[in-house]
Amino acid sequence: MVYADNAATTALDESAYEAMRPYLLSEYSNASQPYSFARQPKKAIQEARETIASCIGALPEEIYFTSGGTESDNWAIKASAFSDPDKRAMITSAFEHHAVLNSCAAIERLGYPVAYLWPTSDGTITSENLEGCISDNTRLVSIMFANNEIGSIQPVKDLCKVTHSHGALFHTDAVQAVGHIRIDVRELEIDLLSASAHKFNGPKGIGFLYVRNGVDFSPYMDGGSQEKGKRAGTENVAAIVAMAVALKRNCEEIETTARRLVGYEDIVIGELEGLDFIRNGSKEHLPGFLSLSFRGKDGEAILHRMDLQGICISTGAACDSVHTQLSHVLKSIRLSEEYALGTVRITLGRNNTEEDAMLIGKTLRKVIGGKVK
Amino acid sequence: MVYADNAATTALDESAYEAMRPYLLSEYSNASQPYSFARQPKKAIQEARETIASCIGALPEEIYFTSGGTESDNWAIKASAFSDPDKRAMITSAFEHHAVLNSCAAIERLGYPVAYLWPTSDGTITSENLEGCISDNTRLVSIMFANNEIGSIQPVKDLCKVTHSHGALFHTDAVQAVGHIRIDVRELEIDLLSASAHKFNGPKGIGFLYVRNGVDFSPYMDGGSQEKGKRAGTENVAAIVAMAVALKRNCEEIETTARRLVGYEDIVIGELEGLDFIRNGSKEHLPGFLSLSFRGKDGEAILHRMDLQGICISTGAACDSVHTQLSHVLKSIRLSEEYALGTVRITLGRNNTEEDAMLIGKTLRKVIGGKVK
Repeated sequence: MVYADNAATTALDESAYEAMRPYLLSEYSNASQPYSFARQPKKAIQEARETIASCIGALPEEIYFTSGGTESDNWAIKASAFSDPDKRAMITSAFEHHAVLNSCAAIERLGYPVAYLWPTSDGTITSENLEGCISDNTRLVSIMFANNEIGSIQPVKDLCKVTHSHGALFHTDAVQAVGHIRIDVRELEIDLLSASAHKFNGPKGIGFLYVRNGVDFSPYMDGGSQEKGKRAGTENVAAIVAMAVALKRNCEEIETTARRLVGYEDIVIGELEGLDFIRNGSKEHLPGFLSLSFRGKDGEAILHRMDLQGICISTGAACDSVHTQLSHVLKSIRLSEEYALGTVRITLGRNNTEEDAMLIGKTLRKVIGGKVK
Repeated sequence: MVYADNAATTALDESAYEAMRPYLLSEYSNASQPYSFARQPKKAIQEARETIASCIGALPEEIYFTSGGTESDNWAIKASAFSDPDKRAMITSAFEHHAVLNSCAAIERLGYPVAYLWPTSDGTITSENLEGCISDNTRLVSIMFANNEIGSIQPVKDLCKVTHSHGALFHTDAVQAVGHIRIDVRELEIDLLSASAHKFNGPKGIGFLYVRNGVDFSPYMDGGSQEKGKRAGTENVAAIVAMAVALKRNCEEIETTARRLVGYEDIVIGELEGLDFIRNGSKEHLPGFLSLSFRGKDGEAILHRMDLQGICISTGAACDSVHTQLSHVLKSIRLSEEYALGTVRITLGRNNTEEDAMLIGKTLRKVIGGKVK
């Protein structure tokens, strides 16, 4: 099997698995208990927090563990400072992940207005677009770091600048980007950032929310005093430890992996020469990320034929896979329907090889019905 | 080491660990994807749902996977049908877990009134007490199945009856009870039930919320279409599978384990003969659960001396362990301070032996300063 759906989820890093094992087996104490058996889990959580913080340029106390990207997004959007009656408005983009879009819909129902920025046709939210929409009533701007269907990376630094010039907070759903491209929250001046471990070779069911020191926010999970009283629930020690190991490993190799994957993109594209397709997204995109729209084809049919050849790719976002209609992302970049319906997403990851890339390209060409080169 | 803090967390069942391994290693697909590599994870989730449902007398479609008991409680309380303006009130008890109490505080801040019932001195919420407080404006009653500090089991069937006679919903935080005593949601007529895997020898970071078919409730985690659109987020396949295996195993042995643990309770108590202490809770309590209050002693000091002897026990709830003040549970049962300050919680579990019980009793006697028998 060739797995090329790394934007949906990734294989667990082996050293991350090894790191989590003791906390599944012998070191099972509740980390919040005050006896010596709890010391090692407690220490492991603290070390994981430091590791993760250092990977994104944050301080350890700015990292809050969650059950994943969806929780982080829900938390950031639903619990970030609703206290000021003069700052009620929120701005996001029309092509966010549903964890953001549906959280926005939830706060809209509570009477908090949300504006949706549209991306350019290459999948970028520009700071000019934000500038035209933001006001001093804006409380929060939430723009994803990189889009999960087309891979385009957003100009986060510029967006933060505009946001802060109006006294608002900047949140980014960086689920697709963390561990794949360099992110320094301090340098970019990000206030809140969501991440999910299983997208960077960590386990499923764990993630984190970075919250800059000084940001006023409420808990989303009420209960015990874990995570400084901000996120209740018995700590998922094994998964926290594994997440840190996976992120550190990915970040250590981030440039070399990226270079390798960009090379693989070229191999796939090279195999498709002469076919009628559009490559979606901007020049600034996640490494190994290919969103391709073939004119007059059916994305779902391509996916199934690739599957029969033992190659896993996707049509759009994983979360949309049960629906067959055109995704909101492809609509937002105004891709014409004759191309949009023939869209597939190929996302290469750390474990892919040059041979994989060649096989994907050749098989895709065959499946599309183009002449074999 | 003798671990006797099974109410805080439990050791992961070995067969549960074995069951989760393939989903951490080879079967890592995102279960929501539409290719053949996702088939096995998807199937495993469905089987886990069926197993869990059958363990509590529910239907598979009534089980929603969450990140644990805290999330289940937050969800049940914050998302259960706020649509009827005439039914705004909620009733809970004063000795609930903080996941319930703090969720109640959150909805109170939004203008939804909450009434708190006080338990009897043996830690029981009576149906008479509920009857005196409930009205046709009550939307939700949330009473825990068994208390996490003193182990007393509540008369859930009677409480459900009273609740339903006023057209309200009944939620129970059964985190401490599931997998330890028989629970049949259909027979008891429970509408919503929270559970957490790590309390019944499953992994940390996973739990479930049972919601009776026909109950009107909103998602708490907004996002993708997982869990029938009710709970977004990539499925934590490995943990879901392990939770089901652990619960099934515990439920298969539930009566024999309970009998064994009740015998161990007697052994511990027998070793303490002649000491001045109160055993908290009612006759109806969780098997293996001992909440003991020693007059004029300091619970924290007892815990630390037991720890030095290699025995893990607790003073109160795990989530309170960073605070040293008298717990809200001991206050709610009006235990006099001279006893309350000397409270320890010993919670024996499946892996404990008769030798453990004897050692715990003898060591406790020594630590308390009583004469050796």
